[in-house]
Amino acid sequence: MKLASLKNGGKDGRLVVVSRDLQRAADARDIAPTLIAAIESWDRTAPRLQALYEQLNAGHVPSTPFDPRQAAAPLPRAPQWCDASAFLNHGELMQQAFGLPPIPEVQTVPLMYQGGSDDLLGPCDDVPLPDEAHGIDFEGEFGVIVDDVPMSCSAAQARGRILLLVQINDVSLRAMAPFEMKRGFGFFHAKPSSSFAPVAVTPDEIGDAWQDTRVSLDLAIELNGAWFGNPNGREMNFGFDQLIAHAATTRRLSAGTIIGSGTVSNAGGQKGSACIAERRAIEAIAGGAPATPFMKFGDRVRMEARSVGGPVFGAIDQRIVPARRPD
Amino acid sequence: MKLASLKNGGKDGRLVVVSRDLQRAADARDIAPTLIAAIESWDRTAPRLQALYEQLNAGHVPSTPFDPRQAAAPLPRAPQWCDASAFLNHGELMQQAFGLPPIPEVQTVPLMYQGGSDDLLGPCDDVPLPDEAHGIDFEGEFGVIVDDVPMSCSAAQARGRILLLVQINDVSLRAMAPFEMKRGFGFFHAKPSSSFAPVAVTPDEIGDAWQDTRVSLDLAIELNGAWFGNPNGREMNFGFDQLIAHAATTRRLSAGTIIGSGTVSNAGGQKGSACIAERRAIEAIAGGAPATPFMKFGDRVRMEARSVGGPVFGAIDQRIVPARRPD
Repeated sequence: MKLASLKNGGKDGRLVVVSRDLQRAADARDIAPTLIAAIESWDRTAPRLQALYEQLNAGHVPSTPFDPRQAAAPLPRAPQWCDASAFLNHGELMQQAFGLPPIPEVQTVPLMYQGGSDDLLGPCDDVPLPDEAHGIDFEGEFGVIVDDVPMSCSAAQARGRILLLVQINDVSLRAMAPFEMKRGFGFFHAKPSSSFAPVAVTPDEIGDAWQDTRVSLDLAIELNGAWFGNPNGREMNFGFDQLIAHAATTRRLSAGTIIGSGTVSNAGGQKGSACIAERRAIEAIAGGAPATPFMKFGDRVRMEARSVGGPVFGAIDQRIVPARRPD
Repeated sequence: MKLASLKNGGKDGRLVVVSRDLQRAADARDIAPTLIAAIESWDRTAPRLQALYEQLNAGHVPSTPFDPRQAAAPLPRAPQWCDASAFLNHGELMQQAFGLPPIPEVQTVPLMYQGGSDDLLGPCDDVPLPDEAHGIDFEGEFGVIVDDVPMSCSAAQARGRILLLVQINDVSLRAMAPFEMKRGFGFFHAKPSSSFAPVAVTPDEIGDAWQDTRVSLDLAIELNGAWFGNPNGREMNFGFDQLIAHAATTRRLSAGTIIGSGTVSNAGGQKGSACIAERRAIEAIAGGAPATPFMKFGDRVRMEARSVGGPVFGAIDQRIVPARRPD
């Protein structure tokens, strides 16, 4: 099934079920007022939401047109947002291009940082940022939303805790990252609010493309209307099962926690990139200086993964804008 | 005024107003069901909570005994938890003892990491952890809970956004930190759930000890009933106003965000330490090997800041226990 949160002036939005073709939405408030409420009692709500989804697809319930511009992130505030860097091809390109030191045990222990999860943006929301000089970039990713996960959960146990799949723009400020990485406390300024495609889907919605807890779909990226890349999610070096187990090593994860894959990246170069930094690395390796500039205010990025059957999560399509200075 | 969240089986607890002497509690559900709900409409709720607090102190409203063992963290799940390391004396001791490289611009740019905020523990809760070999430590800290903070807020503007003060045990796993710091993605496994003293207080409750947005109180630390330290909060090298502005550089902070000071640490050594790692550093500098072991399962830590007038936040008094392995 497919679920979205419509903006309603509140912090969590209003839960709707969305038709498979993303054309229609049915009010789900009789089942749960918000997606986080539905997730917190998933055993009870999921069968009812699934039944409503089937009726919606069959045209048997009242519905309204689904407008992604009215959508918030599926979870506008999530309990936790843990973002990995699970496509090692990306890190290898960055290291090779910029002469970075190798990261210890990168092949065997996932890289993961803790992101802010209180202010996640919708698919068509403007992204307000303070300064173009910060090196504004996007990162196209896939992610999962989990049920409660106990501490020290194994990867095998983690598989059964995956409830929903999501598509993410992990906005990144490249000029701020090296300083923060060098200080050892990790990304903070370099990782402002992330944005989400309008619809979260259960894994069955992508059929055979849900392989070994990876989203094996192309993620089509456009920068200002021009092709930028369409890398596939199958080359993830760690599955989401392993990423969840990593996240839960010394903590419980609350239902609604989002685990991200990190920027999708494929070896070989033919599939382009899901972020500007990686294209700049490829340009540098090819023997020149990085040529593609980071984003300017007014620039747009579009990201959409589609399956053979049609749309999946809907598109992220948004613009970078200057943040309003506080009075 | 003083506010607490009693455990009620829900994720956010039940809001009560607590008397100045921490002996009695008055139900606040007619004003707001939870502390996060109160904070999200503070202009409306704060005057009513303050009035109830005054009536409670005067014995003019129904009340029940306040039992800190029934208290959750004031915000058991907060929108965001941003923890600084604002007492530079602590970092200097660690560097000197263990020959660590200096951290760039540590005097001028606050150190801050993003912590998990979905599973914060109450003052008397056991702290479940998977393995004694992880180097289990406590960190005694102060913190503030803020109202909505706009992106790129100045320190002067940030002052007016501070709503409540809290006292924190930032549980830390020392054996995991160096590896995570070296990889550049920051603390993750090294920072499991933090714990909180039972009561959050408005700054006026500490009177003159609220100095330049610092909590100028001694924080008395006991490990298994023995004195461990009583460092004072006034030596913070950055005020909470500066820490809030730092946190908001490239993001908005939602009402209810918690900003931590980092482990309280005073120069000179007479005041002891608020964490084991720092005592071990002092032992190493004194010419030997670090002698004080990290915590074992069953060990207890107690932390309490008191003012001349009596108790402030109440005490954190909790035990480290082995986490139950998931089935």
